[in-house]
Amino acid sequence: MLYPEPIQGLVNELAKLPGVGPKTAQRLAFHLLNRPEGEAEALADAIVKARRRIRYCSVCYNFTDTDPCTICRNPGRDPGLIMVVEQPKDVVAMEKTREFRGRYHVLHGTISPMEGIGPDDLKIRELMDRLQTGTVRELVLATGSSLEGEATALYLARLFKPLGVKVTRIARGIPMGGDLDYTDEATLLKAFEGRQEL
Amino acid sequence: MLYPEPIQGLVNELAKLPGVGPKTAQRLAFHLLNRPEGEAEALADAIVKARRRIRYCSVCYNFTDTDPCTICRNPGRDPGLIMVVEQPKDVVAMEKTREFRGRYHVLHGTISPMEGIGPDDLKIRELMDRLQTGTVRELVLATGSSLEGEATALYLARLFKPLGVKVTRIARGIPMGGDLDYTDEATLLKAFEGRQEL
Repeated sequence: MLYPEPIQGLVNELAKLPGVGPKTAQRLAFHLLNRPEGEAEALADAIVKARRRIRYCSVCYNFTDTDPCTICRNPGRDPGLIMVVEQPKDVVAMEKTREFRGRYHVLHGTISPMEGIGPDDLKIRELMDRLQTGTVRELVLATGSSLEGEATALYLARLFKPLGVKVTRIARGIPMGGDLDYTDEATLLKAFEGRQEL
Repeated sequence: MLYPEPIQGLVNELAKLPGVGPKTAQRLAFHLLNRPEGEAEALADAIVKARRRIRYCSVCYNFTDTDPCTICRNPGRDPGLIMVVEQPKDVVAMEKTREFRGRYHVLHGTISPMEGIGPDDLKIRELMDRLQTGTVRELVLATGSSLEGEATALYLARLFKPLGVKVTRIARGIPMGGDLDYTDEATLLKAFEGRQEL
């Protein structure tokens, strides 16, 4: 045994984090042991506090410490416009643009037959419930443009269009600052298809 | 505010870890929120447990959960041969070779005037105390071959040689599997100077 058990235990737990291999886990563990005790315990406290106080918003299923979340409670946010995203981090990304003034719905994944994830494993039924209120005018499908993201968007479009709600899909195209030369063909095709008149 | 406070707090604490930027901290935080609660709390517990139970060995100053540490208590490890290293992680690295049968002394740093670290900030006085017992035959200076590591080795050699103890320095040379073509000049010079007869 190379480490005393408490260090080995910490290394093992750190190595479960995404992108953290054994070597990085060791480096992080030694870092935590070398810092003042208060700093290490602050991290432990933050983990426990986040896990205990964060839950899903019962309306949009984003992470929140209040229910409904601040966005769902904000009267300044248009309740008729709902952007459907895969994950809470997508809400953060979109909020950074400071442009979108509607609300969100977080699916918590995409339909993925390969991983055995079907529509019932996502917050789709909950989205259907939100539409029953009749206040929703438009659903913006903002799942990713991976195979699963596209398939999920298609599924949702087919499901919700018959209900008479406007269903849109975010544009796929070359990223800002992107060079055509470095853009894959599928993206270029989407960029061409999605061309708009100036 | 993009995140509820408990998430922001967790992101902030994670971002203090070495090599963890804001984006990685966000990814780790969302990972911890998505995993079963037990797994996140296991990490928090491991941090607290490691900090509470790990201290410095009063003999060699390596991290330990028993005092003296398992190496210092092991009668099979030669008490006359002490390898001096910078950090606890260096002990782990050397132990992996399974060849060294002596004991260790961890300095917890190197002499570094640039960072205001002098000999009194390292466990050098404590090493001096160990030599007073008279059992030590040889000190192997195994600080790194950075400027600070070399300077610290030189300082220790000058300090301890007058006491009549044998002081050696680990070899510097081309790494195993290393190509001369990709080796810097300082290393090649050391490799040449350290050549041994076959």
